[in-house]
Amino acid sequence: MIKKISIIGSGNVATRLSYEFFKNNIQIAQIISRNKKHGQLLADTIQASFTTNINNLKLTDLTIICVSDDSIKDIAKKIPTNQPVVHTSGFTDITILKKQENHGVIYPIQSLNKDIDINFQEIPICIESNNNIFKKKIKNLCLKLSINVVYFNSTERKHIHLAAVITSNFSNFLYLIAQKHLHQQNIDFSLLLPLIIHTAKKTKNKNPFTNQTGPAKRGDKKVIKKHLDILKNKDYKKIYKLLSKNILTTYEK
Amino acid sequence: MIKKISIIGSGNVATRLSYEFFKNNIQIAQIISRNKKHGQLLADTIQASFTTNINNLKLTDLTIICVSDDSIKDIAKKIPTNQPVVHTSGFTDITILKKQENHGVIYPIQSLNKDIDINFQEIPICIESNNNIFKKKIKNLCLKLSINVVYFNSTERKHIHLAAVITSNFSNFLYLIAQKHLHQQNIDFSLLLPLIIHTAKKTKNKNPFTNQTGPAKRGDKKVIKKHLDILKNKDYKKIYKLLSKNILTTYEK
Repeated sequence: MIKKISIIGSGNVATRLSYEFFKNNIQIAQIISRNKKHGQLLADTIQASFTTNINNLKLTDLTIICVSDDSIKDIAKKIPTNQPVVHTSGFTDITILKKQENHGVIYPIQSLNKDIDINFQEIPICIESNNNIFKKKIKNLCLKLSINVVYFNSTERKHIHLAAVITSNFSNFLYLIAQKHLHQQNIDFSLLLPLIIHTAKKTKNKNPFTNQTGPAKRGDKKVIKKHLDILKNKDYKKIYKLLSKNILTTYEK
Repeated sequence: MIKKISIIGSGNVATRLSYEFFKNNIQIAQIISRNKKHGQLLADTIQASFTTNINNLKLTDLTIICVSDDSIKDIAKKIPTNQPVVHTSGFTDITILKKQENHGVIYPIQSLNKDIDINFQEIPICIESNNNIFKKKIKNLCLKLSINVVYFNSTERKHIHLAAVITSNFSNFLYLIAQKHLHQQNIDFSLLLPLIIHTAKKTKNKNPFTNQTGPAKRGDKKVIKKHLDILKNKDYKKIYKLLSKNILTTYEK
């Protein structure tokens, strides 16, 4: 059973996972982070010790590597091969950790922000591991955070990660565009909040095709043209055009 | 006071508004729609009479025109000038109804689907009118549906409508892309629901700029390239590229 863990990183994922383990009484022995300020603050909050030097890593039941995809390999090299380890990347293959006897992945399908509280209970957590005993251990650990722990291989997880970026990162950027546009007109962006949230919640019926509304879906090219007239930002115009064109052709078919 | 209304149309907006008025004990005397099947069904559900012929329009306290932007003008021509009238379009100017003595607009900022239930209580309803007495009447009517009734002129409303299309219609289309992509990999789209809903709810802090996460925000071009490798659909590739490019430049600045 995994009782004591260490976490490498102090960014969005490291912070949110740490808080969540701490809340659920999993002891975090140590935070390891090159960022002294963020790392020390995080360690203090969850009553862990702190080091900037990976060579000072304490042996625990599990080390969770929460760093950028590019850094995982270098960091893994510095960890003793008998120390069980997982990374949290949606896109990086499990084999990047293959030198460790017990290695795996814990990837929560969620957009995590350091400063935004979140309830992990229903977040699907994708796990993967190189052997069944270790798989069971990380599964049991993750079940303390979420009721929805699912096994996917690295290829499947990459597709999930891509889909997550499309739905979450790109949608959020559309919110940003709308906010900037309304701001220029001195109109409060919060008018759109019920619409944004309802549009997201509608996906519970798993049918975005039926849920689609709006001028492009109706084939209303006049409104599309007029929207483009009042949308002055050239980059946003391109985005508007491309998405409308795609919606038009999807519903013409 | 507006006690008895008639509604022209039987599409998404007409249907949802009718249900909402009916629930709130506003009498709907008549549904007028060219679509006999949908119109009759709607009228039966809300205990209204039904006609396909606009010339049979009954005089009421208010006629609500819920038809496509292109048809509003022609329909308005056939309504007696002493019959108070509003349209529900986000994008059409109030002046399209100027021949009516009392005319205005009731535009709920929401993506309405005939078959998807919705709570109007917190939906902002934008109103506009050609005179203050009529404005007060439609305001009081709308307050029976929502606590959030706001006055905007036609120009402001157009910008709100544009922003609504960007946040709602375009986001929903991104959900559709993700669903199609996952479907090809035999992965259940519902894995993304908590992510989609959380991303939308985060906008409550009114700060999509801070809420942004993901590879493009981090400037992680390697992951972007690898995502493009596994996203085979050419149209979706273009969308992915354009949005990522825009996020990259937004956060480089």
